Amino acid sequence: MAQNIYDDDEFFAAYSHLPRSVEGLSGAPEWPTLREMLPDLAGRRVVDLGCGFGWFCRWADEAGAASVLGIDLSENMLARARASMGDADMGDTRITYQRQDLDAVELPDDSFDLAYSSLTVHYLSDLARFTESVRRALIPGGRFVCSVEHPIYTAPSSPSFVTDAAGRVTWPLDQYLLEGPRTTDWLAPGVIKHHRTLGTYLTQFHRAGFMVNELVEWGPSAEQIELVPEWAIERDRPMFLLIRADRT
Amino acid sequence: MAQNIYDDDEFFAAYSHLPRSVEGLSGAPEWPTLREMLPDLAGRRVVDLGCGFGWFCRWADEAGAASVLGIDLSENMLARARASMGDADMGDTRITYQRQDLDAVELPDDSFDLAYSSLTVHYLSDLARFTESVRRALIPGGRFVCSVEHPIYTAPSSPSFVTDAAGRVTWPLDQYLLEGPRTTDWLAPGVIKHHRTLGTYLTQFHRAGFMVNELVEWGPSAEQIELVPEWAIERDRPMFLLIRADRT
Repeated sequence: MAQNIYDDDEFFAAYSHLPRSVEGLSGAPEWPTLREMLPDLAGRRVVDLGCGFGWFCRWADEAGAASVLGIDLSENMLARARASMGDADMGDTRITYQRQDLDAVELPDDSFDLAYSSLTVHYLSDLARFTESVRRALIPGGRFVCSVEHPIYTAPSSPSFVTDAAGRVTWPLDQYLLEGPRTTDWLAPGVIKHHRTLGTYLTQFHRAGFMVNELVEWGPSAEQIELVPEWAIERDRPMFLLIRADRT
Repeated sequence: MAQNIYDDDEFFAAYSHLPRSVEGLSGAPEWPTLREMLPDLAGRRVVDLGCGFGWFCRWADEAGAASVLGIDLSENMLARARASMGDADMGDTRITYQRQDLDAVELPDDSFDLAYSSLTVHYLSDLARFTESVRRALIPGGRFVCSVEHPIYTAPSSPSFVTDAAGRVTWPLDQYLLEGPRTTDWLAPGVIKHHRTLGTYLTQFHRAGFMVNELVEWGPSAEQIELVPEWAIERDRPMFLLIRADRT
């Protein structure tokens, strides 16, 4: 069972003010890279695992998807998603929202052309079950595009940059090879993320029956740093891992 | 052109005293994991890229390989390899040693069943050329088993553990996404290694025509830490990346 931190009022209030919450996909600096990993969505059946406010569901709908299923554990998120754009149940889009715990997700077999999951999988405790569920839900040749917090980002016992006596700013990496839950105080106290090594992500995608055809350790581009100079430090350690995997 | 640091007298003298130099494969803690990635060598044609003192060449010869070609840039290493065990040119084994710069390596097409490279590729400046040369030299279905210093290990501007005011020991990661040469003072001043991200290694293996079927971010096992307690810190950041890639 994944922690439902997005239904914690303090966390949700803080999360609601992040650029990616206010501005949607254009507020997520890794979105242009993720978008490049997507197939043409016209006529495709799409599932978004951890859909949050539904920004991607709406984008997929506008891109001509035949159907879009958004799944999330948080009532808060789903209520916002439904309110800000209609639900197919309400007759005005091809989007349906559904509440499920992704650690126990049930999906119909061979039913989707694309599975998408943005910054969600590090909240799940059972990566094997999840990747196998996604693989079964995809048609052969279907694609899974996924972003997670990078293992270098999730590993440390104290995940904040530090400045040494010489003024050098570094990321204090430790316990990288010790996989398991990490409790951090990001937006609210006691947020539980599951740290896994990059090798574990790749091995588990293979075992579940995927070919990992692209893997990007995301950092801001020179153009992005020019626009937002404080992002330069993000090049010191990657924050996001982006994976394009194809069902074999 | 790769730096020929192993022909630097100070470096070579220090390197000659490392456990892996004195004890051979059994002095390399990652060897049991690498060995698991190898096929049965009986009757196989093997090339060792960066063969050093020839420990692996001798192991492959004893494992029944049909032929073993060991390649290195360093005259020091090759002289020691030839002296400590005969060369096929001398009539007593199936091993041949050859001097080549691996950044400009020339290998015959479709001629090897296994390519092996231990802790060498991070010295090379042209990963694309190298992986493509290895792929062409392998038969279809041939295997490339390779270890490199892990990108987390090669990235930092100051690659040593630090202890903070609270006594916490961490690895001061920075400039991970800034690829390129790194000059360190390991065993001798001015050793040049080429830092690449894990994403770049994987992407380049794919582009060259390999399937990466195993990727291990190596750390010591519980049993190894029991034998050598000071290795426990190696779990804080992986030192080696082990890759099994198969020619498609």
